[in-house]
Order: sequence, then structure tokens, then C-alpha cells
Amino acid sequence: MEERFMKVALKQAEIAFSKGDVPVGAIIVKDNKIIAKAYNKKENTNNVTDHAEIIAIKKACKRLNDWRLNECVMYVTLEPCSMCMGAIQQSRIVKVIYGAKNTNEIDCQKPTIYGEVLENECAEMLRDFFQSKRKS
Amino acid sequence: MEERFMKVALKQAEIAFSKGDVPVGAIIVKDNKIIAKAYNKKENTNNVTDHAEIIAIKKACKRLNDWRLNECVMYVTLEPCSMCMGAIQQSRIVKVIYGAKNTNEIDCQKPTIYGEVLENECAEMLRDFFQSKRKS
Repeated sequence: MEERFMKVALKQAEIAFSKGDVPVGAIIVKDNKIIAKAYNKKENTNNVTDHAEIIAIKKACKRLNDWRLNECVMYVTLEPCSMCMGAIQQSRIVKVIYGAKNTNEIDCQKPTIYGEVLENECAEMLRDFFQSKRKS
Repeated sequence: MEERFMKVALKQAEIAFSKGDVPVGAIIVKDNKIIAKAYNKKENTNNVTDHAEIIAIKKACKRLNDWRLNECVMYVTLEPCSMCMGAIQQSRIVKVIYGAKNTNEIDCQKPTIYGEVLENECAEMLRDFFQSKRKS
């Protein structure tokens, strides 16, 4: 079963390859049915978030009309980067099955982080929001 | 300067608030000019990746026609989650300035990770790709 689904993800990776993008493919499976297929398009679209996993998650959200991908499993040909792992967690995908290990995670530099500018205003808006939600 | 830009991000957060989404706003600045503005739309679009930061990054990539956001700075009203921090790193944004601290990072469960299914096939496709790139 796992190999069968990974082969579908590999077919997606092949499409990326043929288009000159790093060959990574991802699919999302729910109740043993494939609900989303995607391949990496980053270089072609010049969109840094266009990894196979992110596109597959967006397609699955659209398909289910829900941002919660409960009970969904992702098959992906390469171990996800931290952006994609974050998206997987946010989406509540329960299981990730990957092919190749990512031995090359982010060669780029980490940004400088500088916090708590206008903290009160920013935090207050969030507090007001959640308070108004609780009331309604 | 920092407060001026954070106020623009706060205006974006207000839009999210008015639409019933968690009020988070983000902007991207290059050479002291705002090149992208966005607000969180997750609940409205039912797309789990529609955080303000991700949408701002996509807009900035489109604007610059490049996935590399070198020399760009992000102002965001809430400390980014791990998905957004990953996207920021991938995009090479050099600095992140946030407003409120995120005291509530991901209450959801981490997925089970299961690796190295069809590892050889998956890794080989990547090797072939990078080899063909080096040749050309």
C-alpha cells in the first residue's frame, strides 16, 4: 500500500523533473483515496512557497472545503523542510510518509528576529478578537 | 520607522478582524518601500496556509518576479509560527520584526513521521536531476 502511494508521488516528482524543477512530488490520502496530488513548482512560478507539500495541502483543503485535514496521510518523495513540516502540523495531517532523507535542509541563513514592537497594540487586537468570539 | 511600518501591519490585522479571522497582519519592506501587504485569511478561505506572512511572501515574490526576497524585511503583528518561519527562511528574508509574542504556538498534535519508503527511487531521481543540471 505504502509503496503504491509512493509510486504515485514519484510520478508527480517526474513532472517537476520534466519542467526543470527539483523533482519532489506529494500526495494526500484520506480513507485510502487520493484527494490531492502535487509537484514542486518553485522555480517555474518564482513562488518560494510552491513546494509540492504546500500545493498538495492547499488542494486538499479546497477539496474538503476545510483547513483541517484530519485523518489525512501525506506521501512525499523527499523528507519535508521546516516550512512544509509547519504546514503539515497546522493542517492536522496525522501521518507523513517520505521517500528520500533530506540531507540538505536549508543552506540559507536564518533571519534576524526582533520582537515586541508596538506589542501592546498588537496583543490587544488579538485579545479583543478572542473576547468577542467568546461572547458570540 | 519600525513603529510606522508596524502600524501598517496593524491596519492589515484590522481587516482580518473585520472579516472574522484571527487579526494578524504582515508587510514586506525593501529599500524602505512596502512591496507587499497581507492579512490572515485562514478561516475565510479554508486554506490552512493562508497566514498573513505566507500571503505577503507570495505577493512579494510576484512583485519582484523572484522567489529570493534578498534584502527584504518583514513586519508582522504576531510572532510567526513554525510554518511561517520556515517560509521566511526559504525566502531569504533578512529580518523579521514582530509585535505580540506568540504564547500559543500550535496546540495541535505532531504527525507520525515514517521514512524511507522507496528511498532509492526517490533519491535517485533527485541525484539524476542535479547531475543533469551540473552538465548543462
